[in-house]
Amino acid sequence: MSTPIPVALIGLGGVGRSILSQLLSPILSEKFTLVLIANSRLSLSLPLAAPLTLTNHLPILEQHGTPLDLPSIISILSTHPSSRSKGSILIDSTGSDSLPGMYSQILSMGINIVTPNKKAASGSLSLWENIQKVCWPIGKAIYYGESTVGAGLPILSTLKDLVETGDEIQKIEGVFSGTLSYIFNQFSTVEISNVKFSEVVKIAKEKGYTEPDPRDDLSGTDVARKLTILSRLVPASPILIEGYASVPTQSLVPPVLQDANTKEDYLQRLEEGDEYFDKIRKEAENEGMVIRYVGVVDIVEGKVEAKLAKYPKDHAFATSLKGSDNIISFHTKRYSPRPLIIQGAGAGADVTAMGVTSDMLKIYERLCTVRI
Amino acid sequence: MSTPIPVALIGLGGVGRSILSQLLSPILSEKFTLVLIANSRLSLSLPLAAPLTLTNHLPILEQHGTPLDLPSIISILSTHPSSRSKGSILIDSTGSDSLPGMYSQILSMGINIVTPNKKAASGSLSLWENIQKVCWPIGKAIYYGESTVGAGLPILSTLKDLVETGDEIQKIEGVFSGTLSYIFNQFSTVEISNVKFSEVVKIAKEKGYTEPDPRDDLSGTDVARKLTILSRLVPASPILIEGYASVPTQSLVPPVLQDANTKEDYLQRLEEGDEYFDKIRKEAENEGMVIRYVGVVDIVEGKVEAKLAKYPKDHAFATSLKGSDNIISFHTKRYSPRPLIIQGAGAGADVTAMGVTSDMLKIYERLCTVRI
Repeated sequence: MSTPIPVALIGLGGVGRSILSQLLSPILSEKFTLVLIANSRLSLSLPLAAPLTLTNHLPILEQHGTPLDLPSIISILSTHPSSRSKGSILIDSTGSDSLPGMYSQILSMGINIVTPNKKAASGSLSLWENIQKVCWPIGKAIYYGESTVGAGLPILSTLKDLVETGDEIQKIEGVFSGTLSYIFNQFSTVEISNVKFSEVVKIAKEKGYTEPDPRDDLSGTDVARKLTILSRLVPASPILIEGYASVPTQSLVPPVLQDANTKEDYLQRLEEGDEYFDKIRKEAENEGMVIRYVGVVDIVEGKVEAKLAKYPKDHAFATSLKGSDNIISFHTKRYSPRPLIIQGAGAGADVTAMGVTSDMLKIYERLCTVRI
Repeated sequence: MSTPIPVALIGLGGVGRSILSQLLSPILSEKFTLVLIANSRLSLSLPLAAPLTLTNHLPILEQHGTPLDLPSIISILSTHPSSRSKGSILIDSTGSDSLPGMYSQILSMGINIVTPNKKAASGSLSLWENIQKVCWPIGKAIYYGESTVGAGLPILSTLKDLVETGDEIQKIEGVFSGTLSYIFNQFSTVEISNVKFSEVVKIAKEKGYTEPDPRDDLSGTDVARKLTILSRLVPASPILIEGYASVPTQSLVPPVLQDANTKEDYLQRLEEGDEYFDKIRKEAENEGMVIRYVGVVDIVEGKVEAKLAKYPKDHAFATSLKGSDNIISFHTKRYSPRPLIIQGAGAGADVTAMGVTSDMLKIYERLCTVRI
């Protein structure tokens, strides 16, 4: 068995905690050695005198951590004895805007990066190109971000396989937001529904499916980021210079509520938007359709957009989609007329962490395959 | 750019031809060099004076090929100059029973194997264990067979990711046969259907969806083979000593037709089985269900079986499944209560070839990743 690969984990929120849990399991701990954990303020070098656990890591970090200092983390990763033979991995499990700005520097030092953070791949084209320039196959290190789209679902790896084996992508279409999936699966159903949009949003918020300010989900920005990430894997797709900001994105904050200044004001006045959504649903019903908030990368039309759209009641987005699942369909030259479809939970700490650890396993395999 | 990896392709039927087509494309030919092609009788060393094409390869093989001789193919692969630095790949695109018996010997010589041939992974446990013993991570070479289940759909890689990141598989359930998918999607529908089973089988045969003798599909053996392959990737699953032969498999040749001795006799008497299938459909309809021929790996119950089963009319197998698509659902600890679902064409030369070439690209990445 090869020596384990040294790993630093930055970001100890819900997803970070699940990544830690998976890395501490017997199955993964023989392949990876945690050499450092960090949150937004403090970092802690490992191993400790006592083993790190899911229950002790935060108190120990608070007690023994030193102020977060990225250069020293990079130094630890690049000088670790095992690292010198096989490389090391930085896991960015933060939502940080600034850390992705340093990816290209980190990768150019031969440190591999795995992340559920969407900011790098969905930001400006120049940031993304700078990262590509120092990644394998041009550079030495590997960048993987499978969990940035669809969490643990094999979305990016499947798209990569399709493109690299020479299939022609025609259209990628899907429900990419667990929150918006839940909301419209409740609001617009195959059987005629009378539930109010405001009620559904409130229930989604109570169930913890939305951000604290539901407008963060309803803005469509998260979907636009995912579309940017997908789009950049397809050679013929539109160039999005400003990343997600270049994607036409329909906001679900209705005109009447756009003057709400605070989250509290918005939530209190939520009912004022019901008429707006009732009308949209009614129009769809009259055509025998349901409405879904979808993202589309349409290579044939040269369009990338996040929007409300109508689907027939026997379409998979109407019948098969349930709960807060994501569903993504790839229409390609080979998968035609029927698309390749992947469906399942596209958010949640454990499945997002799985996207991260499966990326790490792919790096492990690449670095540890015995050459002949 | 690294030097290309030497590759030998054995088997030049429909899938083999599609593999050849993909390997000759600019995108793949810079990564792989074809050093030999072969069919069941003849082999031909490459390169030739003139470039190999989709139109010239068979006539040239017939004219210049030498009798198929596996040891010399192995010798060519293991002594190729590029092979010595990075390894080589044998593609078994035959339906051969005997070639898989030699996999362990080939792998132990450091030659990687990629194959859509189900025989090795779905045969006896001892054959499979002998292969495992010489594969990475124990041995040096890699064996990949993504396209043995679901063709180009990411079924095995997804299952591998789930298992290796520590998820617990509870049940894998799906429609694994394109032929049986088509037949039951036509025969048992959400709206009440009166079409005869014999008519559907005849249309499927005319469209080329079935084997020349439809009983080869209706026996369920192909599904049992796929279940064996899946099952062997899940540590807690039942041990299938005799491989697919250990899987309880419901045959769709009705009792009244079991004495048909020839394909012609069977096809001529097909209507005699209609009453049998009408009864099964009627029973399902009375319960508001449709019938599908499914494969199940049920870890909780400790069962692997291929059988006819009933599903509610709002189940994804009833509403979302169309044409001759495969649909596979993974019920796991993380993907619960709703499963991870993958759907799409699970047969066909181009998508099967894609499963093969995407496996080859994964080997390429593993062998060509620059170490730090």
